[in-house]
Amino acid sequence: MSSTEEPLTTATVAADDGSGGEGGGEAGTEASAETGREAIVRAARRAFTLRPYAEVTMRGIAADAGVSPSLIVKRFGSKEALFNTVADFRAAADELFAAAPAVLGRHLVLTMVGLRDRFRGDPLLRVVFSLGIEDERTLLRERFREQVTDRLAARLTGPDAQLRAELIAGQLLGLGATLSLHRPDGAGSHAGPERLADLYAPGLQRLIDGP
Amino acid sequence: MSSTEEPLTTATVAADDGSGGEGGGEAGTEASAETGREAIVRAARRAFTLRPYAEVTMRGIAADAGVSPSLIVKRFGSKEALFNTVADFRAAADELFAAAPAVLGRHLVLTMVGLRDRFRGDPLLRVVFSLGIEDERTLLRERFREQVTDRLAARLTGPDAQLRAELIAGQLLGLGATLSLHRPDGAGSHAGPERLADLYAPGLQRLIDGP
Repeated sequence: MSSTEEPLTTATVAADDGSGGEGGGEAGTEASAETGREAIVRAARRAFTLRPYAEVTMRGIAADAGVSPSLIVKRFGSKEALFNTVADFRAAADELFAAAPAVLGRHLVLTMVGLRDRFRGDPLLRVVFSLGIEDERTLLRERFREQVTDRLAARLTGPDAQLRAELIAGQLLGLGATLSLHRPDGAGSHAGPERLADLYAPGLQRLIDGP
Repeated sequence: MSSTEEPLTTATVAADDGSGGEGGGEAGTEASAETGREAIVRAARRAFTLRPYAEVTMRGIAADAGVSPSLIVKRFGSKEALFNTVADFRAAADELFAAAPAVLGRHLVLTMVGLRDRFRGDPLLRVVFSLGIEDERTLLRERFREQVTDRLAARLTGPDAQLRAELIAGQLLGLGATLSLHRPDGAGSHAGPERLADLYAPGLQRLIDGP
């Protein structure tokens, strides 16, 4: 997994925060326009994760992303709109839940590892960073509950669907947390996705199948 | 679980940070001396979790704890000594791992829920808050790896002990994360410890038993 090669620097918060793409980038050409967008999203995720909402400025995000503040306004609108863009788990949930229940456990592990590689960070873990912080970031937790837990619960049959969905969400968050926590030298950093799935999927599948 | 009754306020960071006891308290009497100590530890955990090490001051911790800075120095010594006190997972690990491997899965769930209740917060989760932050808090991750993961790995038999220990640690972190994330209205907030263990322990036990 390429993400495990990175040292844990402040920049890696963005990666652990589920952000995508490479940093920097000018927005003068078509090719770099997409790079600029990703840089903005990554900078915004970092800013909203690390600082109270009220202290986050478009100017600060722009400086971090290497673009002009006016470009952010043009692309995303207001600060609130930008926050809403980065505080969204739907794209990750779409991929995570795209399997039949009978094989969902393994699919969840393989997809989580794949998303972490592709986005150079964890697609869900930033919700944990927001725990205990009272400001607009409570929206992050509400979004997670709606877009991940409730959606998962609706797909489960049998008793305790909501509780099982919460525990499945916990195992997914825990997988990302432990992979980030033990890199770059941990056993999880050197294990292939299939081996991780062999070990981690059965517990997930049991919660999916129900008691 | 009493901790689920609390709203998620800034003060709850301390609770989620594994801190113990009630806040405030004068240190003039024997009875309040212990309260003062707990208030200091809780304030220190909050400070070291939320701010860079260099920005944390004994004066700030003292103000938060409702005690004098000189009392902190008298009780804990230097800022570094205080950090070392709060960045320690051994007491939690002692309780978590106090069961034979054959029954450890269930014991882990019940102990985790019990510790969260008793400490009004999660004993391990603060290590996740430190992800991606480069300062003395990297020590928090090293401590976790030594005091939780490596200690667990040493108790496991069979192949992939280190990898399984990392995944078990992940499931423990994930349990705390999801209980905190979905409170106070979540299904996990209303489920008893035994029901949580019924659902969550089998996955842990499977990782303990090995492939």
